[in-house]
Amino acid sequence: MASVDVPVALLGYGTVGAAVDRLLRERAGDIERATGHRLRVVRALVRDPEKERGFAPEPGVLTTDPAVIRDDPSIALVAEVMGGIEPARGYVLDLLGAGKPVVSSNKQLVARHGDELFAAASANGIQLRFEASVCAAIPVIKLLREALVGANVHRILGIVNGTTNFILTKMEAGADYAEALAEAQLLGYAEADPTDDVSGADAAAKMAILATVAFGARVPIGDVPHSGIDTVTSLHVAAARELEMVVRLVGAASLIDERYDVRVQPVFVDRHHPLAAVEGAFNAVMLQGDAIRELTLEGPGAGGMETASAVVADMVSVIGTTGTGFLQNDPCWRTLERLPPGELRSPFYVHIEVADRPGVLALVAQRLAGQQVSIARLVQQPHADGASLHIVLHEAPVGTIEAALAEIAELPEARQAPVAIPVISDRGVTELGWA
Amino acid sequence: MASVDVPVALLGYGTVGAAVDRLLRERAGDIERATGHRLRVVRALVRDPEKERGFAPEPGVLTTDPAVIRDDPSIALVAEVMGGIEPARGYVLDLLGAGKPVVSSNKQLVARHGDELFAAASANGIQLRFEASVCAAIPVIKLLREALVGANVHRILGIVNGTTNFILTKMEAGADYAEALAEAQLLGYAEADPTDDVSGADAAAKMAILATVAFGARVPIGDVPHSGIDTVTSLHVAAARELEMVVRLVGAASLIDERYDVRVQPVFVDRHHPLAAVEGAFNAVMLQGDAIRELTLEGPGAGGMETASAVVADMVSVIGTTGTGFLQNDPCWRTLERLPPGELRSPFYVHIEVADRPGVLALVAQRLAGQQVSIARLVQQPHADGASLHIVLHEAPVGTIEAALAEIAELPEARQAPVAIPVISDRGVTELGWA
Repeated sequence: MASVDVPVALLGYGTVGAAVDRLLRERAGDIERATGHRLRVVRALVRDPEKERGFAPEPGVLTTDPAVIRDDPSIALVAEVMGGIEPARGYVLDLLGAGKPVVSSNKQLVARHGDELFAAASANGIQLRFEASVCAAIPVIKLLREALVGANVHRILGIVNGTTNFILTKMEAGADYAEALAEAQLLGYAEADPTDDVSGADAAAKMAILATVAFGARVPIGDVPHSGIDTVTSLHVAAARELEMVVRLVGAASLIDERYDVRVQPVFVDRHHPLAAVEGAFNAVMLQGDAIRELTLEGPGAGGMETASAVVADMVSVIGTTGTGFLQNDPCWRTLERLPPGELRSPFYVHIEVADRPGVLALVAQRLAGQQVSIARLVQQPHADGASLHIVLHEAPVGTIEAALAEIAELPEARQAPVAIPVISDRGVTELGWA
Repeated sequence: MASVDVPVALLGYGTVGAAVDRLLRERAGDIERATGHRLRVVRALVRDPEKERGFAPEPGVLTTDPAVIRDDPSIALVAEVMGGIEPARGYVLDLLGAGKPVVSSNKQLVARHGDELFAAASANGIQLRFEASVCAAIPVIKLLREALVGANVHRILGIVNGTTNFILTKMEAGADYAEALAEAQLLGYAEADPTDDVSGADAAAKMAILATVAFGARVPIGDVPHSGIDTVTSLHVAAARELEMVVRLVGAASLIDERYDVRVQPVFVDRHHPLAAVEGAFNAVMLQGDAIRELTLEGPGAGGMETASAVVADMVSVIGTTGTGFLQNDPCWRTLERLPPGELRSPFYVHIEVADRPGVLALVAQRLAGQQVSIARLVQQPHADGASLHIVLHEAPVGTIEAALAEIAELPEARQAPVAIPVISDRGVTELGWA
């Protein structure tokens, strides 16, 4: 398939705008092979083109004149990543009026002026998408609109503010509210004035958008009452623990007898509920519907690259569903070799039954060391017939672990073939925390 | 927008086929308002039209002749929900050759013959979608293909077989393998011959499809080694618990130095990892990629209506991205009233500080009872200044709880305004378990 050239423009070139440009440039090959389209940022509207930027746009891309973007017939679509209500609202209306599809990452704009913006898009027969306006990398808008049509989603439970979830997770670990907030601010997850996050106002705007899409009816932001976490004390966190629960700031949207209720407030969540497992600054959204029962999405709810991922997803969806749409492609666009199975690396749990003789542990340890496999934890349980060794091994190539275990199986002291089970404990990216 | 009539056909009218027909009929209004299209099942291929069926098709829909579907120019697309390799493969190739888009729920067909089927679809410039072939209601194929283009997804961890997850969850609760398997069979989550599930073969086919889509390269099912849970003993489950881990059957697909490794095997998962939270017969897929960090989807991985939801999602996506595509619509298609805030029902945790006098507990209990609010759990903690009451209330309308607490706040014994926090513990649908 011949590649189609797709010039695009950005309104704004801050953290998110620069990340969109970077993603489109660094992953251009992947995107082109997967979609048959090459998306290129040819214009970006900024206030000060001279400002130093972490990721530099191509020469000549920056402009201070929105009309340059609106009036360029070659620009196929525009991403609004500038934030704020005005002048973003005026620019987007102007672009839609000129027949340019728009994708927006602007939560407040979509929550407060969605009706007006969609009317303009519909009047011009073009698309307005807004995946990045809610929960960054979590593609919940696309799912609700394209995958769950007919599922009758009637309830949404969301942890949609990472800052407050980070603070609550820290309070569970023993910090009080003030300490946890101070740490969030130190790490850059909370603003100097954290009101918008801790009051629940940010979450309320996101829940208004989610409820609007899920229920197919406009939910005004003023209809979403919210209380924040500033009233949550260590006493409540301890009481929750006592009840085998955790405290979370939860947005809940319900459709009951064809009426909606949307609210944001601190909630006690049972330890076995999927939302209780959401730690640090991650977001999660649980959707409940007749045909799907319940579907939970968890992922990073903020971050420049994570938000850019959603912006690019919207761009690709616009391009894929208009004109030279590509969505009928075979998903395969390349040939890859298989990794030799023994090269895959993993930590392992190993169970070995041995005779309880002096020196047997040393023999086992030597065989592991001989293959450069090192021990993280070891428990030896003696019993009537010998001893059970329970060993956790540090990450190593599967092949070397298998070789060491084969040698151990040959020992006269080995009672049966060792059992090796991989271990997953690398929740590393989550623990970084994100606002 | 005028509604577009879209006649569709089914290959098969078993559990999934009947659920698709039912979903399209019962939710026809929603689907039409959301998409502008009315999808109607006009033909369904079956072996025996006389067989009694739980959900009855419209008169004249059932046929035993696949050519009737292929040669009807009014039929816009066909859903293959019959399962098995042949004759499904031949029928689908025939339909694609005749220019009819196809959506399939057939895991084995897609995993084993995807190359041939996609070549036929591409040659005819039409779509072949297969969301329902993996993890039923979890729309992971759409996400990978449409939302994560450019995210460079390089690792997938999946619990993609509900039967084995149900068995492992039961073993954690104390059952041994044979008991847990027997219970799964009794409840209908496991077949009389459970080999395909417990050996990991079912999960391997699903992982082959997921890796193919995520990596953009065909991963043959023969390249996915699998070991099952039949070797997992109560000893391993206990060892995992000792290590603060749980045992899960995990499919892992990795892209390492442009080479793939895909495998299915029992794994120890850290208690804080999102996959550890997946209980009963639910499925979950974690996607790791550069731009998204990690995204986890959890939901029902089987079931007639859940699978039908994915089939309908694919149908809607085909219709929305071809011809009279609707994806540019404003998501709103109706006006709803807001539920009066006090009518929302929830269980609550309540914290009340009182003077430590005889009879105070009775006064509090009376105020709650007066509003028909009942107590599920109560802990009274005396301290130097009085006593703290920690109360969990059964589900009740928020308004009645607020009224009771307002009365309690008026008691001379109340030391400060009571604090009420909603409780979420209704993981009910998960506990049902699903294969």
